Amino acid sequence: MKNDAITSRDVDFAKWYTDVVKAAKLCDYSNVKGCVVFEPAGYAIWEKMQSILDGMFKETGHQNVYMPMLIPESLMKKEGELIEGFAPEVAWVTHCGKKELEEKLCIRPTSETLFSDYFSSAIKSYRDLPMKYNQWCSVMRWEKTTRPFLRSREFLWQEGHTVHATSEEAEAEARQMLNIYKKFFEEYLAIPVITGKKTEKEKFAGAEYSLTIEALMYNGVALQSGTSHYFGQKFSEAYDISFVNKDNKQEYAYQTSWGTTTRMIGALIMVHSDDFGLVLPPKIAPKQVVIVPIGNVLDKVDEVYDTLKKNGISVYVDDSNKSPGFKFKEAEVNGIPVRIEIGERDLKRNVYTIARRDTQEKMEVSSDIDIVDYTINLMDDIQNNLYLRAKERRDKMTYEAETVEEMRNIIENNPGFIIADWCGSIECEASLKEINGLKSRCILEEEKPVHKCAVCGKEAKHRVVWGIQY
Amino acid sequence: MKNDAITSRDVDFAKWYTDVVKAAKLCDYSNVKGCVVFEPAGYAIWEKMQSILDGMFKETGHQNVYMPMLIPESLMKKEGELIEGFAPEVAWVTHCGKKELEEKLCIRPTSETLFSDYFSSAIKSYRDLPMKYNQWCSVMRWEKTTRPFLRSREFLWQEGHTVHATSEEAEAEARQMLNIYKKFFEEYLAIPVITGKKTEKEKFAGAEYSLTIEALMYNGVALQSGTSHYFGQKFSEAYDISFVNKDNKQEYAYQTSWGTTTRMIGALIMVHSDDFGLVLPPKIAPKQVVIVPIGNVLDKVDEVYDTLKKNGISVYVDDSNKSPGFKFKEAEVNGIPVRIEIGERDLKRNVYTIARRDTQEKMEVSSDIDIVDYTINLMDDIQNNLYLRAKERRDKMTYEAETVEEMRNIIENNPGFIIADWCGSIECEASLKEINGLKSRCILEEEKPVHKCAVCGKEAKHRVVWGIQY
Repeated sequence: MKNDAITSRDVDFAKWYTDVVKAAKLCDYSNVKGCVVFEPAGYAIWEKMQSILDGMFKETGHQNVYMPMLIPESLMKKEGELIEGFAPEVAWVTHCGKKELEEKLCIRPTSETLFSDYFSSAIKSYRDLPMKYNQWCSVMRWEKTTRPFLRSREFLWQEGHTVHATSEEAEAEARQMLNIYKKFFEEYLAIPVITGKKTEKEKFAGAEYSLTIEALMYNGVALQSGTSHYFGQKFSEAYDISFVNKDNKQEYAYQTSWGTTTRMIGALIMVHSDDFGLVLPPKIAPKQVVIVPIGNVLDKVDEVYDTLKKNGISVYVDDSNKSPGFKFKEAEVNGIPVRIEIGERDLKRNVYTIARRDTQEKMEVSSDIDIVDYTINLMDDIQNNLYLRAKERRDKMTYEAETVEEMRNIIENNPGFIIADWCGSIECEASLKEINGLKSRCILEEEKPVHKCAVCGKEAKHRVVWGIQY
Repeated sequence: MKNDAITSRDVDFAKWYTDVVKAAKLCDYSNVKGCVVFEPAGYAIWEKMQSILDGMFKETGHQNVYMPMLIPESLMKKEGELIEGFAPEVAWVTHCGKKELEEKLCIRPTSETLFSDYFSSAIKSYRDLPMKYNQWCSVMRWEKTTRPFLRSREFLWQEGHTVHATSEEAEAEARQMLNIYKKFFEEYLAIPVITGKKTEKEKFAGAEYSLTIEALMYNGVALQSGTSHYFGQKFSEAYDISFVNKDNKQEYAYQTSWGTTTRMIGALIMVHSDDFGLVLPPKIAPKQVVIVPIGNVLDKVDEVYDTLKKNGISVYVDDSNKSPGFKFKEAEVNGIPVRIEIGERDLKRNVYTIARRDTQEKMEVSSDIDIVDYTINLMDDIQNNLYLRAKERRDKMTYEAETVEEMRNIIENNPGFIIADWCGSIECEASLKEINGLKSRCILEEEKPVHKCAVCGKEAKHRVVWGIQY
């Protein structure tokens, strides 16, 4: 059913996005500029994301810890590139009560400094390694323009920080975490991603290199969706994280860090949702099934509810005193993957009506079916369909270009991912920014260039994915 | 086995406490003064606490949300008592990057202001009520003296905030949450608590009244362990949280808030632990069972491990290449409730040796027993034993007094809870502070005074529990 509270996404994508966020009650603007309130429906998605990712982290031997949220200025400044990268956007605490502090403290924009400080005293020998930690927390970056979930001054995230005795092991860790992110996006969020290496210009401040997963939104804008950084010994030299290796020699340790944020909720909206509201893949939906009773059907509703619940399906009954039509619309706006309508008249004919949110198809189904099997199969089908639909669209919006003119033409008419070869020079890369802010997304590590550099026409070094970004 | 890293708790309780925290690797001091690093073993206890409490909150209809961590000064100041109570200890953000902010922002010391601000725009009608929210986050209070878990500048907590259409419903909510805290302490943490109402002097700034659970530590010092506040309409008047009631009239809403913190980890240590290290009740222990293999017993170890794990028991095998004696000691320090030693020689006689952490008893057990049943029963027994041991000690350290002299005598010689009657005057209450900082813990609401006021000798209004506090 058309939802009057939601602008069509083909008419005004930005307005559509905020309309969906508001209509599905995911978050609300707060009186704190640039920060949002995560409302129950939005926070429940984050909790589901946390529980799945946390399981994947623990399965691969990571432990959770919690570091302070404040970083003394002197500690923050030890690694030069990092402070340079974050200095313009950190929030400084200068007073407590009425007293001025001797040293100002910043609210963490990221916690490499605190983890490194901890590692430097906790690690003595190769026997203490590897140390593989993760932290769930919020961080603060004073952004100028903000947008719910995609960019806000405070956001929720996880940051993994690990220390290893060899570069090989640390590099393997960075790759492993990138693959976990890719798996999470593709299998749970039903969002296809491109993986690759960031260019020198786009890598994380202080990293040897950064790996990234990049997703494409419905409107052709790219979203950097998760990153995994290899630090080599940069931080361990700055913070003195050294250990006695197996040859009984003192050596600097090798580090990684990796993170994903609440912007993943934004990705879910901008990849799957539609003019009727939120669409959620069943594997990430906090509520997977809604039962709408119509008429006097309480016993049957209880039976179906109990059966589904007992089998691990997240189900609820909408027994409010609104009209069925209103309830259908609400379930649609809120992105509930499966809706089971149990009606008095239908039951006399031994049928239910089942609606799937992704295609909005309605099916009449015999009430004698195994409802658990049916629902699980239907949810699998929805999950797959959402992934394939997103992949088909992404593939259709991925173009190849050999020249700057071709790139401009694509971006100005049908934006999307552009694959183009590049010589490796920062000037060529930077010059593309004047095309609506076009930037490199990542280097395709497993592909070789087939053309000259699209910008300067010289020998190309890399195949690169380009795009405009959130 | 005596642990040399741990001072005896009867010799120096404060030193014993920090020794246990350090030896069990629960947390570490950080370079951020007054803040600690929650290490994996400490954070895992918090995660277990969170998962149990969160389940109890959700079962009673609460939903999780997340509010910004920064509060603009003007918003903070709307409720006079609250800002007065917290002003001396809030951290102020005044600059972002190099720019001074137009309005300074404080890091939340608690979030009544933000929740109230949100409620004021989200609530229109009685149909929107009740609204029952909870948030897991960290808060910041600039304490002068700090102690790991018990008092630190930043700590982790949950804060529940609810809004109701009637005072009856809000008061019932405040009571319900107090009872949930009591249940959690007694059934999971195995810590007996006294429940009651805070005096006017000790209540939360801005509350109509505060309910509290109070626990007694091994050394006779009291620990306020969880509080639940009834606000009446105080915040709703200050923040304009009004709604159209059933009679179609505009009315201010009724609120509560309630919280528990990482100081619960401190309580676990100071109630149950001993000179050998941490002692954890099985229901809150992240790792419940350790298997120590001695000799060539791999198949049997795998079998026992798999069986326990399949049955939902949290078990690990210590297969490091340390000596068995060292492993026993480590399991003791870390507070693993049950240790199963599987030895080559023992197996030939068809026995295991099983040790329980609470009493350090070792039992020889036939390897033919149902190991799951045995372990579950043993853990139940440990859980009960810890509770009873703590309750017996608490009861023994709970005294009655009729005069100030008696109170002084108790506190100076054998501190603990003192039950004494009180006239209700703030002067009498305040005057007791000179006895080692003696304060009221709570009013026993269901008991009537039987003596005169212990301080002034006038008519008593309340039976009160007094104690010195952390």
